[in-house]
Amino acid sequence: MASNVRVTAFAPATVSNVGCGFDVLGFALDAPGDRVSAAFTAAPGVTIERIDGDHGRLPREAERNTAGVAALALVAAIGERRGIALTIEKGLPLASGLGGSAASAVAAVVAVDALVGANAPLATLMACALEGERLGAGSAHPDNVAPALCGGFVLVRQPSPPDIVRLPVPDGLTAVVVHPDLEIETARARALVGDSVPLATAIRQWANMGALVDALHRSDFELIGRALEDAVAEPRRAALIPGLTAIKRAAMNAGALGCSLSGSGPSVFALCRRPQDARAVAVAMTAAVRQSIGASRAYISRVGQRGARLV
Amino acid sequence: MASNVRVTAFAPATVSNVGCGFDVLGFALDAPGDRVSAAFTAAPGVTIERIDGDHGRLPREAERNTAGVAALALVAAIGERRGIALTIEKGLPLASGLGGSAASAVAAVVAVDALVGANAPLATLMACALEGERLGAGSAHPDNVAPALCGGFVLVRQPSPPDIVRLPVPDGLTAVVVHPDLEIETARARALVGDSVPLATAIRQWANMGALVDALHRSDFELIGRALEDAVAEPRRAALIPGLTAIKRAAMNAGALGCSLSGSGPSVFALCRRPQDARAVAVAMTAAVRQSIGASRAYISRVGQRGARLV
Repeated sequence: MASNVRVTAFAPATVSNVGCGFDVLGFALDAPGDRVSAAFTAAPGVTIERIDGDHGRLPREAERNTAGVAALALVAAIGERRGIALTIEKGLPLASGLGGSAASAVAAVVAVDALVGANAPLATLMACALEGERLGAGSAHPDNVAPALCGGFVLVRQPSPPDIVRLPVPDGLTAVVVHPDLEIETARARALVGDSVPLATAIRQWANMGALVDALHRSDFELIGRALEDAVAEPRRAALIPGLTAIKRAAMNAGALGCSLSGSGPSVFALCRRPQDARAVAVAMTAAVRQSIGASRAYISRVGQRGARLV
Repeated sequence: MASNVRVTAFAPATVSNVGCGFDVLGFALDAPGDRVSAAFTAAPGVTIERIDGDHGRLPREAERNTAGVAALALVAAIGERRGIALTIEKGLPLASGLGGSAASAVAAVVAVDALVGANAPLATLMACALEGERLGAGSAHPDNVAPALCGGFVLVRQPSPPDIVRLPVPDGLTAVVVHPDLEIETARARALVGDSVPLATAIRQWANMGALVDALHRSDFELIGRALEDAVAEPRRAALIPGLTAIKRAAMNAGALGCSLSGSGPSVFALCRRPQDARAVAVAMTAAVRQSIGASRAYISRVGQRGARLV
C-alpha cells in the first residue's frame, strides 16, 4: 500500500505564437509555472483534492479541469485502475497568455506518470496533456504543451499526428514577459485573426520563420531580432492591448531584440541577448503598460532548457 | 591598352520557390549554367557581341537583355567609362524554371567586375544582377540571383533592402531537375497563385519552412523530405504541368526525399540524400514526363556550394 506516496511535478510557463511562428512556435521559461501533486487514494478514477492560486475560479471536477482531463487521458492510455488524487498549485495567472492550461496539463501527466511508475513515452505524455489543453484553450495545438513538456524552443511542424522539432537555444537568451491586468478570451483573439492572409504578408511570415530558425542555430542575435516580427496575427489583435505599439517601442528602446504578443495575449514578451539586459527592458515595458492599461506583473527568465520536471 | 583581355564568368542554374519556400528560398546547382565573357571595346557603353545557345530568341540590344542590363547597372554603379563587349553562352534553356535570366545577369556582373578590377562588394553585385533579373523575370525577387551568386541554399528574409541568409548544405544532398519540353510564362504562373492564402495553409507553410531550415542545419534528411511540401503555390499551378502528381509520385517511389516545382515551372526538381540515388530518380521522373508531356531533359547535380565563378 503506497497511500502516503505523493509525487509533485512542475511545468513552466510557455510563450507561444512566438513572433513569426503563429500557431507553430513556442518556448519555455525556467519559471514561473504550475505544480501538480498526485497521490493514490481510495476513491476510484481521478479526483481533484485541492486547487491553490486560482481564486476559486477553476472547476474542481476532474472531467472539467485541464489537469484532471490530462490525468484521466493518461490513466486510460496506460490502463491504470487505482484511484488518484491531484493537488494543483497555480503559479500562473489564468487567461494570461502564459500557457497556464498547458502547464497544468503537463504537470499533471508528469506527476501521474511518475506516481504509477508508467514511464510512458514522450509522445503519450504529450497526447494526454493535449487532451487537457483542448479543454482549457479550446484547441489542441501543441505549441504550448510541447515546450512545457520538453523545454527550449519547440517548432510544431504538424499538430496531428504531432511532428515536433526541438530547436537550439542560444546561450544567454532571456525572456521578459509582462502580464497586464487585463483578460482576453482566446476565442475572441482567435476570431480577430480571420481565415485568410494576404499572400505578400504570408510570404513575409515564412521568410521570417526560416530566418528565425537559422538565427537560433547560429546564435545570431541580430537576426533573431529582425526575424521576430509577426506580420499576421499581431496587427489584427493589437486593438485588444491598449498601447501595444508603445509597449513594444519601450522594450526595443531599452535594448530588447524583439517584442511581440505572448500566445493570444494579453501578456507581451521580449527577448534579450543576456540576462543582465532584461531588467531594464522589464522596467520600460511595465512603465509603458502603466500608461495605457495600468497594473502588470513582469517575469524575467532565461529561455528554459528544461521542461517539466519532478520536484 | 588591355583590349585583348577577356574575362569569362560562369553562373549556375538555380531552383527557386523550393517547396515551402515560395518566393524566399533558392539553391544553386553545380551545373549547368550560363557563361558570360567581357572584354574592353572601342564602342562606348555595353554592347552584346554574340549570344550562343538561345536559338536567336534573346534581344541583342544591351538595354533589353538581362545580362546587358545587369552589366549596365554595374558600370553605372562603379563609374566605369570604358566600352565593354559581352559574349553570352546560354547553357540554360529559356523559360525553363531553372533561373536562366538570373544566371546570365549574375555571370555578366561577375565578368565585368573582374574585367575592370572593381572588386565591388557582394551587395552591389547582387543589386546590379537584380536589375537584369527584373527585366528577364518581371520582378526583382532575389531567390534566384542570390544563390546563383553565392551558391548553396539562400533564404531571402527580405527582398528590399536585401536581407540574405545563407543556409548550410548537408553533405551529399543532390538535386535532380527535369525540364519538360513545355513553356510556361512566369506572369501566368504567378497570377494563378492569387493574392491571398487560407490561414491554415499559410500556417502549414511556415511550419514547414522552419522545419526545413532546421533540417538543413542538422542534416536531417527525413525532415527535409517531410518539410519540402509546398501547400501554397504548387497546388494552384499543378494544372500547368500535365501529370505533375504522377511525376512527383515517380520521384518519391524511386527514392527522392521530396519533389516540387522549380521556380514557376515547367521544370520539376527532386532532392536526394546521396548522388548515387539520383540516377534512378531522374530515370523515373523522365519516364513519367514522357507519359504526360513528352520529351524532357534531366540534370543531376549536387546542391552547389559555390556560386558564380571566373572560368
